[in-house]
Amino acid sequence: MTRKVTIALDVMGGDHGPQTVLPAALATLERDDSVSFTLVGLPEVLEQAQHDSKGAYGSRLGFLPATEVVEMDEPPADALRRKKNSSLRLVIEQVKSGEADACVSSGNTGALMATARYVLKMLPGIDRPAIIAAVPTLRGRSFMLDLGANVGCSADHLLQFAIMGSVVAGDMLDIDNASVGLLNIGQEDIKGNEVVREAGDLLSRSGLNYVGFVEGDAVFRGVADVIVSDGFVGNIALKTMEGVASLIASYLREEFEKSGLRKLQGLVAAPTLAALRSRLDTRRYNGASLVGLNGVVIKSHGGADKLAFETAINIAIVEARKGVPVQIGKLIEDQPEACIRAL
Amino acid sequence: MTRKVTIALDVMGGDHGPQTVLPAALATLERDDSVSFTLVGLPEVLEQAQHDSKGAYGSRLGFLPATEVVEMDEPPADALRRKKNSSLRLVIEQVKSGEADACVSSGNTGALMATARYVLKMLPGIDRPAIIAAVPTLRGRSFMLDLGANVGCSADHLLQFAIMGSVVAGDMLDIDNASVGLLNIGQEDIKGNEVVREAGDLLSRSGLNYVGFVEGDAVFRGVADVIVSDGFVGNIALKTMEGVASLIASYLREEFEKSGLRKLQGLVAAPTLAALRSRLDTRRYNGASLVGLNGVVIKSHGGADKLAFETAINIAIVEARKGVPVQIGKLIEDQPEACIRAL
Repeated sequence: MTRKVTIALDVMGGDHGPQTVLPAALATLERDDSVSFTLVGLPEVLEQAQHDSKGAYGSRLGFLPATEVVEMDEPPADALRRKKNSSLRLVIEQVKSGEADACVSSGNTGALMATARYVLKMLPGIDRPAIIAAVPTLRGRSFMLDLGANVGCSADHLLQFAIMGSVVAGDMLDIDNASVGLLNIGQEDIKGNEVVREAGDLLSRSGLNYVGFVEGDAVFRGVADVIVSDGFVGNIALKTMEGVASLIASYLREEFEKSGLRKLQGLVAAPTLAALRSRLDTRRYNGASLVGLNGVVIKSHGGADKLAFETAINIAIVEARKGVPVQIGKLIEDQPEACIRAL
Repeated sequence: MTRKVTIALDVMGGDHGPQTVLPAALATLERDDSVSFTLVGLPEVLEQAQHDSKGAYGSRLGFLPATEVVEMDEPPADALRRKKNSSLRLVIEQVKSGEADACVSSGNTGALMATARYVLKMLPGIDRPAIIAAVPTLRGRSFMLDLGANVGCSADHLLQFAIMGSVVAGDMLDIDNASVGLLNIGQEDIKGNEVVREAGDLLSRSGLNYVGFVEGDAVFRGVADVIVSDGFVGNIALKTMEGVASLIASYLREEFEKSGLRKLQGLVAAPTLAALRSRLDTRRYNGASLVGLNGVVIKSHGGADKLAFETAINIAIVEARKGVPVQIGKLIEDQPEACIRAL
């Protein structure tokens, strides 16, 4: 039997707030009857949502009022100190108290990270939370971390990221022993900076399925299930990926607009181009996990629509069912002594 | 009148050696009668090239024998110490002696960098050479550096890269006052690591057209003519770009192969798809400049074909005609006192 899970959803975050969160939640309730939601937001927003959902899902759709909202540009420290009753904070508190098995928010990333760290605390053996998300590859999907939570990292931090990434990729791809690569500027042992080389040594001695250094282009050939880097490099790589994909999409549009004949060609090729767009659709990759915490916290993109938010909800469901934090804790304990000492 | 230039070409480097270098040189001689070449390589290779070119270009096509070749996987220090009469070394010596105005090699990047630095020396005020190349953007082309010569950099180094990038982009795009951005994980002043923030301060006080921090996706919208980063981050971004472009090309091929109908659609759209491929053709972006040296040194991709090698030759011609090293020297001198002190 599928394990029942409850997910707390912040309906105030993101560009579209409840307009995307509610439809995404309803679609999920319809599809998977072992899932329940608690919507968290300002009372007037919840009233509207309650009205729109017509009580159709009974106790599977709960409502928890918040008194304030964290702004997208609010400094994380301010949000943490002053907004103790915000929707962003309350979804995390739901996870802390065990009333929810996971939470999803499209809100302020920095505030979500700082609040999650403060409320849920780190897992033993993990120094810092990291952000992990899926990227498309020739072979399917790989998981990259850290995508921006930590600008400077030690080799120990990279090892911890590798452990966390290995759990998340294994659960999301439903595989054992996910392969792990270190993002570097060459494959040879002498390449890169000292931190990366030292992390390579630690990973070689770890119990993980470490495949070595991976260059930026090889990531997209799917040479490893998990790609580890510090948050500066990971963020640049992720944004570069997005930038190149939209550059190529623009080129494609321009080329098919160049003449009447080209437009006709575009009409003929439209189904194929739509299939291509769908494969590259960023909404299919929405939802980044904040890992390393005592609880499952998923960040959805601020601009997420219904489909994108559903993708983020699905990540929360999988991670909650599989118990990602507990698994990470176990994998940390399973590390060979050499690595434990390094931690 | 166009200034006459002589370019020394290493015919031994790269995967195809003389098979690409000679045709690229002949095509250039045909097109531009103010250009001369000196081909440098092993005697038997030069004899064949001399035979194939049939003496058609007289003194515009010279030949200089080398006695050895630097291997692609040879440690740079070994090449520098032991192979003083290699084709890679001799093309640089030609620039040093003034017999050539620039040189191009598809050889071992590390050896080319180490040898160029040893033979040509750094420009005053520049601590380290950097690698710069063009990337496609929505608005045309931008120039990124450093692409892998320096894994760890100080803020002063990033400022020096910005100065060098500003000259190269200005010359290659034929514009005054090229705009310069710093690659970072956010646009706000507080984003990124200490080195990047300090470099931002230095650039704000420099005489350069500094536009601020640029995120990985904004690079491809063409928000700045020059994108500055350390060599680790720049290399990851460049390789990520290549990886994503080939991933999308593969997806496109797969989609147009999925059925007989799809194949027909592909045939109809073929001219447009060919135009797209041509816009993304990496051969059109071949040729990286090693900047910061007392001379023009261009690195061509090891897998370059005739067209790609011609692109690299053209960069050498433009940089030689415009005198990039002299311009960099002047721009360093023109920096406000605050920056000069920082240097």
